[in-house]
Amino acid sequence: MKKLRVAVLAATGIVGQRYVHMLQDHPFFELAALTGNASVGKRYGASLTANAPPIGEEARNLKVLPTSPDAVPDVDLVFSPLPTEAAKKLEPQFARRFNVVSDASANRMAEDVPLIIPEVNPSHLVLLGPQKERHHWRGSLVSTPNCTVTGLALVLKPLHDALGLKKVVVSTLQAVSGAGYPGVPSLDLIDNVIPYIEYEEQKVESEPLKILGEVGEGAVSPAKFEIGAMVHRVSTTEGHLESVYVETEEEFDADRVVDELRGFRGEPQELGLPTAPREPVIVTPEVDRPQPRLDRDVGTVPGMSVVVGRVRAGPGRNSGRLTLLAHNSIRGAAGSAILTAELMHKRGLLE
Amino acid sequence: MKKLRVAVLAATGIVGQRYVHMLQDHPFFELAALTGNASVGKRYGASLTANAPPIGEEARNLKVLPTSPDAVPDVDLVFSPLPTEAAKKLEPQFARRFNVVSDASANRMAEDVPLIIPEVNPSHLVLLGPQKERHHWRGSLVSTPNCTVTGLALVLKPLHDALGLKKVVVSTLQAVSGAGYPGVPSLDLIDNVIPYIEYEEQKVESEPLKILGEVGEGAVSPAKFEIGAMVHRVSTTEGHLESVYVETEEEFDADRVVDELRGFRGEPQELGLPTAPREPVIVTPEVDRPQPRLDRDVGTVPGMSVVVGRVRAGPGRNSGRLTLLAHNSIRGAAGSAILTAELMHKRGLLE
Amino acid sequence: MKKLRVAVLAATGIVGQRYVHMLQDHPFFELAALTGNASVGKRYGASLTANAPPIGEEARNLKVLPTSPDAVPDVDLVFSPLPTEAAKKLEPQFARRFNVVSDASANRMAEDVPLIIPEVNPSHLVLLGPQKERHHWRGSLVSTPNCTVTGLALVLKPLHDALGLKKVVVSTLQAVSGAGYPGVPSLDLIDNVIPYIEYEEQKVESEPLKILGEVGEGAVSPAKFEIGAMVHRVSTTEGHLESVYVETEEEFDADRVVDELRGFRGEPQELGLPTAPREPVIVTPEVDRPQPRLDRDVGTVPGMSVVVGRVRAGPGRNSGRLTLLAHNSIRGAAGSAILTAELMHKRGLLE
Amino acid sequence: MKKLRVAVLAATGIVGQRYVHMLQDHPFFELAALTGNASVGKRYGASLTANAPPIGEEARNLKVLPTSPDAVPDVDLVFSPLPTEAAKKLEPQFARRFNVVSDASANRMAEDVPLIIPEVNPSHLVLLGPQKERHHWRGSLVSTPNCTVTGLALVLKPLHDALGLKKVVVSTLQAVSGAGYPGVPSLDLIDNVIPYIEYEEQKVESEPLKILGEVGEGAVSPAKFEIGAMVHRVSTTEGHLESVYVETEEEFDADRVVDELRGFRGEPQELGLPTAPREPVIVTPEVDRPQPRLDRDVGTVPGMSVVVGRVRAGPGRNSGRLTLLAHNSIRGAAGSAILTAELMHKRGLLE
Repeated sequence: MKKLRVAVLAATGIVGQRYVHMLQDHPFFELAALTGNASVGKRYGASLTANAPPIGEEARNLKVLPTSPDAVPDVDLVFSPLPTEAAKKLEPQFARRFNVVSDASANRMAEDVPLIIPEVNPSHLVLLGPQKERHHWRGSLVSTPNCTVTGLALVLKPLHDALGLKKVVVSTLQAVSGAGYPGVPSLDLIDNVIPYIEYEEQKVESEPLKILGEVGEGAVSPAKFEIGAMVHRVSTTEGHLESVYVETEEEFDADRVVDELRGFRGEPQELGLPTAPREPVIVTPEVDRPQPRLDRDVGTVPGMSVVVGRVRAGPGRNSGRLTLLAHNSIRGAAGSAILTAELMHKRGLLE
Repeated sequence: MKKLRVAVLAATGIVGQRYVHMLQDHPFFELAALTGNASVGKRYGASLTANAPPIGEEARNLKVLPTSPDAVPDVDLVFSPLPTEAAKKLEPQFARRFNVVSDASANRMAEDVPLIIPEVNPSHLVLLGPQKERHHWRGSLVSTPNCTVTGLALVLKPLHDALGLKKVVVSTLQAVSGAGYPGVPSLDLIDNVIPYIEYEEQKVESEPLKILGEVGEGAVSPAKFEIGAMVHRVSTTEGHLESVYVETEEEFDADRVVDELRGFRGEPQELGLPTAPREPVIVTPEVDRPQPRLDRDVGTVPGMSVVVGRVRAGPGRNSGRLTLLAHNSIRGAAGSAILTAELMHKRGLLE
Repeated sequence: MKKLRVAVLAATGIVGQRYVHMLQDHPFFELAALTGNASVGKRYGASLTANAPPIGEEARNLKVLPTSPDAVPDVDLVFSPLPTEAAKKLEPQFARRFNVVSDASANRMAEDVPLIIPEVNPSHLVLLGPQKERHHWRGSLVSTPNCTVTGLALVLKPLHDALGLKKVVVSTLQAVSGAGYPGVPSLDLIDNVIPYIEYEEQKVESEPLKILGEVGEGAVSPAKFEIGAMVHRVSTTEGHLESVYVETEEEFDADRVVDELRGFRGEPQELGLPTAPREPVIVTPEVDRPQPRLDRDVGTVPGMSVVVGRVRAGPGRNSGRLTLLAHNSIRGAAGSAILTAELMHKRGLLE
Repeated sequence: MKKLRVAVLAATGIVGQRYVHMLQDHPFFELAALTGNASVGKRYGASLTANAPPIGEEARNLKVLPTSPDAVPDVDLVFSPLPTEAAKKLEPQFARRFNVVSDASANRMAEDVPLIIPEVNPSHLVLLGPQKERHHWRGSLVSTPNCTVTGLALVLKPLHDALGLKKVVVSTLQAVSGAGYPGVPSLDLIDNVIPYIEYEEQKVESEPLKILGEVGEGAVSPAKFEIGAMVHRVSTTEGHLESVYVETEEEFDADRVVDELRGFRGEPQELGLPTAPREPVIVTPEVDRPQPRLDRDVGTVPGMSVVVGRVRAGPGRNSGRLTLLAHNSIRGAAGSAILTAELMHKRGLLE
């Protein structure tokens, strides 16, 4: 099978580096172009940050291109971890010529942009038909959610299906890599936590409702429950931990919830996609887990499974709590976008 | 005025050291005896941990006594930060002869033991009458709450009075000093958080209901709302941060809530007690505060004010969120107990 | 006594804030002007970083001025914590009109600029005569050392006087505040240390030789021993720890060294200057000290004493080791500059 | 080839777990017995700490035996990471029946116990002949060095051979795993470093001299240079960083030193032993490396290569500096002992 040629925009950033790392030796995709900003014209290998994951010679030797549709050669697919402002402007320009899968926030809530977690709402990809028509694009634009939302929505999906969600209150303990590089100064986090991340709570309170919503005629009708978020930045490198309180239509029975979470599978698992973990949600029996350093890389595809623990009912009737951990740079960013592209490829949406 | 003579039990522990530090040069109290365990017979100064707060020569020269009522000389008051098991057994023995103010958990929920935050429920001290009668004690036993509960209840009190609480979901980010010394291993918290603290959630879910309950004939009728706790240990030395979601009878108007919190005063403020901060609750206007390292020592009596920020309504009607910070070793332990003793002294309950 | 009017350049930076904090209610000096860069025109209070030390209303209400000699009103003294490039250009311009005390690195090694630690080499201030003459300045320019050098040179001075230094090898564990704000990213220091700080080793290897050198006709003849530095950035907020190996002319007797360090006093102590600690060097007897969090604020003027521990002879003859801790933002920056200005004032060098 | 049966003593400790992890699927060895202390009688899987490396079902199902020669079945080899006191007493008892490879400190400096780093001094194994004879042991006792010493001696060996060492001053920044579990309290290391580790400096100052010494008639004549150590505990999980100053007989030319380090190979590399990394010493060209989190797992056998950077001459003539990083739990403990056993096996010393 001939591999599809892909470009990664903003490839020198902390998430861009994850894409490149994960796309090396990929069975479907082949790295054809990398774009950057300050590093344009340099070898990619010379633009990596010290904490980049392992990246081989082939990718290191690619020349960094400007982030502009004209500068990128013919590719079948473009991954975009652009910053918000750049994404708002550039992603539609790229979509005229290219199929774009983005984990930028800029266009996630646009009516005709599907916001995809492949295990949760693959049906939302039908929005691409009306989208291409309306904009007269040869390409397309698909979004993946905020790094905190992906883990949350993956867990809320089986809960919502089984029990009917009425209210969700989520408190997060987020890793510094979620803020990019250089990101959060050491002086702000040593012996400290910060109970605030700009714009984060708005994203956590809106994106899951679109993801769990019903797709209709060229738009998604959002799910009807309410979400309240309380976000915190803590001194961890990778792995967003989220403690979640839910109110449900039906009784929250902890054993049943564990069974639903453990049994949850999606189309990526059925199709055996390369980046699909065997279990999208792993439930740990230990009383003091998940923990970021110990659990962020578990599962058959490291960083792609959400780990859940401490499932318990109450307080009161029809409510319960649990704690989840998702690798923010993998499942929360590059990994979800690549898995989405794999799904699109299998469905013939990248041709 | 003659000072009352006081003893501190378990004075070599991390909280015990706080007591000793705060009781030096106290206008009401004079350190007369310190007890310990492994250090019995040594000078107190030789038993201090490296991270002890400043402690002067007078206290350093006291000899560490065994923790037994017979070993303690005649004092007017005993402070007890004993471990749970020891407290369960020893506090009633001490109460036969001494007035005991305890921040141990063992006897907090006992029917006839008042669980006191001086600004919140000083009226509960009336339980001491029936208590002394029932047990035929010459002394008495008063408890102060868990370190996480104190900050929470101080904030819930004005909210409950103003809006009527129906449900509280609290997510905590707790400092390591709350686990004592040696406490949490570095290997467990570097690049990590732990979403579990043994027995902590039960305490957080029950103690505030007693504190905000109504005192009656020899017992307290607990408040009627529900509390759900989700606790986390993080890599900070001092200061428990708590993000709180509340459902209320009346509309949660953020401006009104800020006014109620800022205006909140209690009997310690009216009486001008030495350890009473001018404002029990300080509301910060900054969007990203409170933060443990920056805010744990603010206020007129460092460590005694709770700092609140991020007051906001929603999600949905009649609900809201806020974040609070309380110094766990001061307001959450030694400071509250000393303030309670000051109040008791003013009311003539220590004679 | 009328107070001298002072300006602080770059007052919005992390060291600038320390100056402002320390100059409030100063017996000799009165804050008259603050300059900045991005904050020009704003109230100073609106430009402070979250981790600024306490700063009162008076300073908060000052308007931030541009960092230019023309923009600064008539003052008697200018403190300069400017970044290197800006200092190189601007400090000589300021010196035409103003007496400048700088802790910037740019002009420290200039032949006619005295590089002062008030306890160590106050005699070097005689360089100001030839300096003013050569440049036709109405003002003057005095430098204070790099934050790592100050603590080191304060300890080397009594050692050199007593034993004669031949070689010094110093290994540092430096706090993040030394890199300013935002400074070192959290992602670089969580579960990590960095064995490199740009230009730092060169400064540590040269500045002490000038400070301990002999002042002659308009220049300093540097001390003759050799210094090798191995610097590391670690995850602490304040306090540079330095482990030092020395080779000496005379035998290194640990008891004698402790006595020399404990007995060391300088002109600031004799004059009783306001920012002079009673003991410039405190020797701790504990085997595992000094430690940054526990010892950085000890002494009569918090942050102004260097704390030394682990003094021991060997390996081999005429050599020894010790560990020292100096508060990098106070003794290593603002505090030393203010103490230098106090000394200059007493000597009539600011009129 | 039939695998040798091995036992791991103290297998439930932090180093013991590393042994078990590394011995799974080992081509020469097969786990036959695990001993413990508090966990005796339990399944090994039930005794693991949360931060244990991945350990499979086979090992998890072994029953934990008492640490006594009588309790251990017939095995060909015993690995001992026992605590000092236990090792002192028990290792000679085990050696009566078993070949013991120990990374405990107790017997390292005993005259007839070879202290081995397989790349550095495999010839010292000849001590086993006289050893067995003197003690009438059927087995034998071989030691491996302290976790800080192993990385240091691996780097000093090629330096000593090429330039002739006269003096070594080493300053360490050591990870908390080196203290075992629970080890160093969080309260001691948040925003802090500790310039002291009990007994560590003595080991660092003596063991390398034995390792680099010449083996003779039943004893080793230690190398003649001097070592001074200044040790520090810092907030990292794994990886001891060491900055080293050396004085040499010949000129310290940085390029030559890099070449010698890069070219260094030992018998394990020649024999292609399973746990031998291709390069015992990796020299990084980056100016700010090695760093613990980024470099502790590099190389062909993760954790077995020492990473060196910042090689530079001076101060003065015939001296130089460099920084090295060694994974303390792998190369500094379990890995070195296993590599030693592999070498002994190849040489027929385990039959």
